[in-house]
Parts: sequence; C-alpha cells; structure tokens
Amino acid sequence: MKNNVIFACDIGGSKLLCGFVDDNGKIIDTQKAIFPQNYTIETIEEYIIDFYNKLKLRNPECSPYVCGMTIPGLADAKKGMWVYACFSGIGNYPIVERMGKKLQLPIYIENDVNACALAEKVYGVCNDCENYFWMTVSNGVGGAIVINGEVYGGAFGGAGEIGHVVVDENSLICPCGHHGCVEAVAAGPAISTRYEMMTGKKMTSAEISLLARNGEKDAIEIFEKTGEYIGKALGKAASFLNLERYVLGGGVMQSFDLMEYKINEAFRKEAFASPNKDAVIVQTGLKYEAGLLGAAALTYNK
Amino acid sequence: MKNNVIFACDIGGSKLLCGFVDDNGKIIDTQKAIFPQNYTIETIEEYIIDFYNKLKLRNPECSPYVCGMTIPGLADAKKGMWVYACFSGIGNYPIVERMGKKLQLPIYIENDVNACALAEKVYGVCNDCENYFWMTVSNGVGGAIVINGEVYGGAFGGAGEIGHVVVDENSLICPCGHHGCVEAVAAGPAISTRYEMMTGKKMTSAEISLLARNGEKDAIEIFEKTGEYIGKALGKAASFLNLERYVLGGGVMQSFDLMEYKINEAFRKEAFASPNKDAVIVQTGLKYEAGLLGAAALTYNK
Repeated sequence: MKNNVIFACDIGGSKLLCGFVDDNGKIIDTQKAIFPQNYTIETIEEYIIDFYNKLKLRNPECSPYVCGMTIPGLADAKKGMWVYACFSGIGNYPIVERMGKKLQLPIYIENDVNACALAEKVYGVCNDCENYFWMTVSNGVGGAIVINGEVYGGAFGGAGEIGHVVVDENSLICPCGHHGCVEAVAAGPAISTRYEMMTGKKMTSAEISLLARNGEKDAIEIFEKTGEYIGKALGKAASFLNLERYVLGGGVMQSFDLMEYKINEAFRKEAFASPNKDAVIVQTGLKYEAGLLGAAALTYNK
Repeated sequence: MKNNVIFACDIGGSKLLCGFVDDNGKIIDTQKAIFPQNYTIETIEEYIIDFYNKLKLRNPECSPYVCGMTIPGLADAKKGMWVYACFSGIGNYPIVERMGKKLQLPIYIENDVNACALAEKVYGVCNDCENYFWMTVSNGVGGAIVINGEVYGGAFGGAGEIGHVVVDENSLICPCGHHGCVEAVAAGPAISTRYEMMTGKKMTSAEISLLARNGEKDAIEIFEKTGEYIGKALGKAASFLNLERYVLGGGVMQSFDLMEYKINEAFRKEAFASPNKDAVIVQTGLKYEAGLLGAAALTYNK
C-alpha cells in the first residue's frame, strides 16, 4: 500500500486535471475533463468526486492522505475560500470545508499562479532558495513573489502582477486599459499579433517559435523583442524586490532558449546593478503538468 | 524625573544630529555637528558621547533608557553592525556593542531610509497601516518597503531601490550607469539640471520651487514633470507590491503640493488598476527632523 500519495486537483477556467502524485512529485495517474458551457461549482464538485473514485479504482495500491487544489482566480488559502473567478462567476465558496467532507481528506488551496511558484520550491529549481519571483508567460502573464519561502500576496491580494507592468508605453493596448503592459506585448496572443503586424501572416506563438528555430528572421526578431520586454520587467522587479532568483514558466517559455540572451541583457540594463549582481534568471523546473504539481505542492509539510 | 526619554542619534554622511526625544515623538533638545574632513569612526563616537553628556547636563530631569541610531549606508540591525558607508569607508563596525558599553544603554540601529519608514508608523501617517512604501526625494532618492509592520530588506539587502527604477530611458544618465532612473530625473540636483537645460539658469530645487509658487511657467512645468516621474515609479511599485499607502518624504517633498495632482495622475495611469484602486499617496507626517524621529522610532516596543 502506498500511503505517501497526494490527490492533486488543477482546476482551470475551462478544464479540470486531477491526479495521484507521490511525495517526490512523481505523477502516478491522471484524469482530465473539459468543462461544459455554463458550468457551476456543483459541476466541478461532481467531476472531482468522480475522478477521485476512478483514480482509486485504477490504483488500488494508492491511499491518498491529503488533497491540494489550485483555484483559477482569487483564493483565500487561510479561510479555505474560493473568493472569485472571472470565467465562471463562482465566488465566496467555502471549497475546503465542502469538499473536505465529501472527499474525507484535509484540503489545501491556493491561486494557480501562487501554487506553481511554491511547486518550484518543492519539486522544481528553487529547493535551495527562499526568495524568488515566479513568472508565467502563456495566454496571459502572471507572477508571484516568494519571500522566506512563502507567497507574498500584497495588501489587497494583488502583488506580483508583472503582467501589468508597463514596458513599452507606445505599444499595444491591454484589456486592463493601459498601453504596453507585459501581457499586452509578450503573452502568446501578443506574440501572434506582433508577428502579424510585421509580416501579415496569422500564426500561433508556437508556430512562430518553430519558424524562429528554422532561422526565419522575422520570427527570431519577434522572440528577441519578447525577451527584451520580459527582461526589462524582471529588471524592474529586481530593483524593487531584490530577490535571488527569477523563474520563468508557462507555454511561451518553451521558447526560453530563443529569448534567454535578450532576457538577461535587458535585465542587466534595467535592474539596479550592485545589489542584484548575483540574481539569476532560470527556466522552470516543472516540465509537464506544472498546475498539477502546484496543487500537490500545497500539501507539502502539512 | 522623565524616564520615557530616548537618546536618538541621526548619523549622516557629513553631519551628526543627536537629541532627547520622548516616547510620543516630542523632541526635547538637540545638538548638531558637521563632521571634519577625513573623519573616522572614532570621531563619530567621541561626538556622540560628548553630545550625550551635554544633553544630560542641559536636561537634568531626563534619564534616557534606550538609544536609537540611524546609519548612513548599510546596517545589519540584527547583528548590530554598521556594514558599510560609501562616504567615509567605515565598514564592519560592531557599533551596538561598542557604543552600548560607552553609553550604558541598549542600542538599536537601522539604515536611515528604513528608520524613517518605520518612524512613519510610530510618529507619522502610518500608525493605522501595516503595508506601505516610503519614498524619500532629496539629493538622492531612496525607498523602503514595509510589510506587516517590518522593513523588507530583500535577499541581498537592496530592496525598495525606487531611485534606480527607470522611468524615462531617453533622459539623463545616473551615476549607477543607467539612463532615466528616478534619482537621475527627479532628485533635487536633477530638478536643477532639468531647469537649467530648459532656461539656461542655474538654481537649486528650493529656488525653483519658490519660482513655481510665484507662477513661473517653466518652474511649474519642471515640477509637474517631476511629479509625473514619481507617480510613474510608484505605479510600478504598486503593480509589484500592492501596498496600502505610498508615503513621500525628503526635502523635495516640501513641494508636494506642486506635484500632487501629477503624481496621482501618473500613478493611476501606471498601476494595475483593480487591486490598487484603494491605494493612496500621502505626504510624510514627519515634518521636521525626520532622521532623528527615525532613530527614536527604532526603540519602539523594544
């Protein structure tokens, strides 16, 4: 009987991924679903219970002792509340209490970005580091500040919002209303838009990345500029926060190697040099299923 | 006999201000000196002991029970070490142990900017606030981040360096090597330089402030632009740090009213709106002798 098993739930805005993960971050088995339109909190609960039972049936040697859940949107980890999600309108739901009764497990929750930041410490590249910044670049751009091993949430729960730091005020507008936020110029859709503006061709950021790897000059330039934006934002983070490490994850960061040089160059050009000379920028250590490992990491030392 | 008296020492790069301050932040008496050229740590120690004796002689009813000292440069408050000062070259000096023996008082030390930030909580405008940013604009620009009532120093002791956040990359160069840092465009000397570039006239920032108050258009424009730089930097601070309050002190902030509108406008234009909508920007509550009150505040609750 395996009794070091965590039941991890990565609740997304449009999908659910559940899995059994062992204490060392090894994923034993997973089950996935796309939510139907107009789903409710009840839909999510039914999926989770169904998946838990299926995973137990398929893995009779596993006996989970704890559950970690990532929440898409605002979560109050201490109160165990799902505070708000913009996709579904779900709000002020005491998910830890409710699901704890149904699953008969202690449950720990966190916002998804914060959970990934913490997973970097438990399973990733920050096991020797207490003070770091986690940045995810995918369809959006998010960030989390880890101080003394804990996520710093800010006075109003909105710290680490690097996606909305302005890096090019004459550039594209962001849904937040400002021009040239990191999210507006460096997220996946922004990479597509900037490439289309340059070449007239509509492509996903993954396709543009492939073109860049094949030596296409415009695609290379687009990724270099993206790296410059990211490095500039991280440099500003360093001047304020003076952290040891800056960790980059999310889908766009599968092209980290195409941007690494420019990210570092822009970081050095921007960050106040002397106290940040030993800071390093690294790629995430959470290769696959970062969200699921994020959920599992929430149960660490609990 | 007054037994709620603090012996406060504001050690500057070129001057020393000592005083007796009561628990409520009332300054009872002070003594001041400009250091001679090539002063050493021994010079400073002799001054402090001499001033302490003079203050006691002049105020026989006062019996200080504790001492607070601000350090110009890097201080390690926990170890009681004066780590480094660029003006004097003083470094790795166990000032708490050494001066504690000579004064026969418990001593608490902090970097001067951090001390002023904490004083805002004890004697200033943050007595109801645990999470705020303190920014000083004078000959240089410094900052301190207060989280849960304590200064956050960063992984390498260099957090809160808002003076070296870039706000106008095509503008004046900073001694730190980057262009358009807040310090390079908004500190007192920068205000003088920008005014001289605009008008050809050499003036101090205090003189330019007076001109602005008398309605001189160029002077008004210079201060408005200064406010814009400061608000922009604070807006970036908000997107990363999500604090409740942003407190502005230092000599240049005696012209706060000339800049307040532009500071707020630029802040709103820059900061990620939703989580920072309740943040406020205020002028320091430490009117005179902020450094001395900073030193006194270090002994609070000790």
